[in-house]
Amino acid sequence: MSDVPAFLTESARRIDAVLDQLLPPAGEGAGRLHEAMRYSTLAPGKRLRPALALASCRLFAGDETLCLEPAAALEMIHAYSLIHDDLPAMDDDDLRRGQPTSHVVFGEAMAILAGDALHSLACETMAFHPGGPEHARLRSRVQRHVLGAIGWQGMVGGQVLDLSLTGRGGQASEGEVEEVHLRKTGALIRASLVVGAEVGGATPEQVEAVGELGKVSGLAFQVVDDVLDVTSHADELGKTGGKDEAANKVTYPAVLGLEGAREKATELTRDALARLEAVSSEASGDGGPLAELLRFVLERRS
Amino acid sequence: MSDVPAFLTESARRIDAVLDQLLPPAGEGAGRLHEAMRYSTLAPGKRLRPALALASCRLFAGDETLCLEPAAALEMIHAYSLIHDDLPAMDDDDLRRGQPTSHVVFGEAMAILAGDALHSLACETMAFHPGGPEHARLRSRVQRHVLGAIGWQGMVGGQVLDLSLTGRGGQASEGEVEEVHLRKTGALIRASLVVGAEVGGATPEQVEAVGELGKVSGLAFQVVDDVLDVTSHADELGKTGGKDEAANKVTYPAVLGLEGAREKATELTRDALARLEAVSSEASGDGGPLAELLRFVLERRS
Repeated sequence: MSDVPAFLTESARRIDAVLDQLLPPAGEGAGRLHEAMRYSTLAPGKRLRPALALASCRLFAGDETLCLEPAAALEMIHAYSLIHDDLPAMDDDDLRRGQPTSHVVFGEAMAILAGDALHSLACETMAFHPGGPEHARLRSRVQRHVLGAIGWQGMVGGQVLDLSLTGRGGQASEGEVEEVHLRKTGALIRASLVVGAEVGGATPEQVEAVGELGKVSGLAFQVVDDVLDVTSHADELGKTGGKDEAANKVTYPAVLGLEGAREKATELTRDALARLEAVSSEASGDGGPLAELLRFVLERRS
Repeated sequence: MSDVPAFLTESARRIDAVLDQLLPPAGEGAGRLHEAMRYSTLAPGKRLRPALALASCRLFAGDETLCLEPAAALEMIHAYSLIHDDLPAMDDDDLRRGQPTSHVVFGEAMAILAGDALHSLACETMAFHPGGPEHARLRSRVQRHVLGAIGWQGMVGGQVLDLSLTGRGGQASEGEVEEVHLRKTGALIRASLVVGAEVGGATPEQVEAVGELGKVSGLAFQVVDDVLDVTSHADELGKTGGKDEAANKVTYPAVLGLEGAREKATELTRDALARLEAVSSEASGDGGPLAELLRFVLERRS
């Protein structure tokens, strides 16, 4: 694996500090709920979505302190979706990010509720951060992009499509796999980049271009993930390897073969980096961290 | 049962029309998800929370058309919480509002996701309705009250407490039962009344007083519900009667006895109506519908 970019390490540190502040304290009142919320959100992980938001903000030379809470909200949404996706009634996964999944540790009822509470807290965070009437328009835009990406139109709808295709034995067309990935994973990755651009003060045209970059990057990310599921072992990936195939999941390797999926990943990565170059040439900030980040996640080999 | 107030019937009709517009169309794309969202949200029911919001708005002579979407969001949140509470891993209920619960009809995975999608759609609705910069402050206040009522601080935290007390066999003090009820049910009922007052342009003092009224009414509502669970039959209540006791649920009849719980309900109802009279005397609108509504739900006998 290429070295972890310094930007990613540093942004994870900043985001974890903000998450620690936003999450309810462990051990008070319904304390086991708070623990479950913290367990999944602060689990070891790349904090990729917040990093994408911060890197996108930097590309437009924005005030990154205004981006921290919205970025933390993106991570909470990601954590909530993983908790629910891992449930026995859904993907039934026991291992996530190298540790037992929420329902294994806290039980199913608590896992459902911890996901629900993180979902609400993410919405609350976006509604009130950054604070003050001068940021009302920004908060509204962030909510527009993120809330439009995570519900029936996006992430949840994508998971439903995924489950329904899995239910018919994983038989799917390339178009269907693409739709699942664009909605289930891609929409939130796209929103992460767009949120950073909005905080950075990008023009509507720039936001649009970053959105397209996010769409391509999100799809590329998922194709790479599909390929790694086939080629990696559990101890490297931190989740059960080869599980997609065993579970009849719709994946790019399943429809294009492993080599075809690798080519698709390379092609999408090239497209993403070219789009980033085009956007960067018109932006006033530093596109370096975002380029480094995209290369890191799209060219990872494990 | 006393006659259903005309205001309740009329507000349910208005809210269902708005919900029908806000919910995704059945039968497109991930259409089964959309069906599941509609099934639970548009199920036969009183639409009590939206009605409380509209009646509270009328008490302050507010523009009720501005209250319709926030009120619909309250109903979506209520529906989402019922879907998740009824899951096998939680209260394991097969019957709700007189019809099979979501997971019975659509399966567990879809029920979890339909709840999630309703939760997101409710947040999206509050973030963007009523629209326009002139209502930015109102939207922000609505979000403050509702989002503060439904997460770990309120509804979800209350369900966790409820499950944990149930887990120890339903042994609880009156204070613990009160905390469960205030958070699990009371917080959203309180928020419903407060949302209506905010839309109606109530002063901060009036909003505060309506909040206290909402707190007392929410608790009263739940005590009445507890009593009815003991005394009603399934066909009257539309859910499995006597189930609380069988499930070791913490209830007022369990800690105070049936007569004690009835007295508590009467006392809280009297308190709520006195508070409403005090608030009404200082408000510019019509408090009649709200009084009629509170009497209807708090004095119902089935």
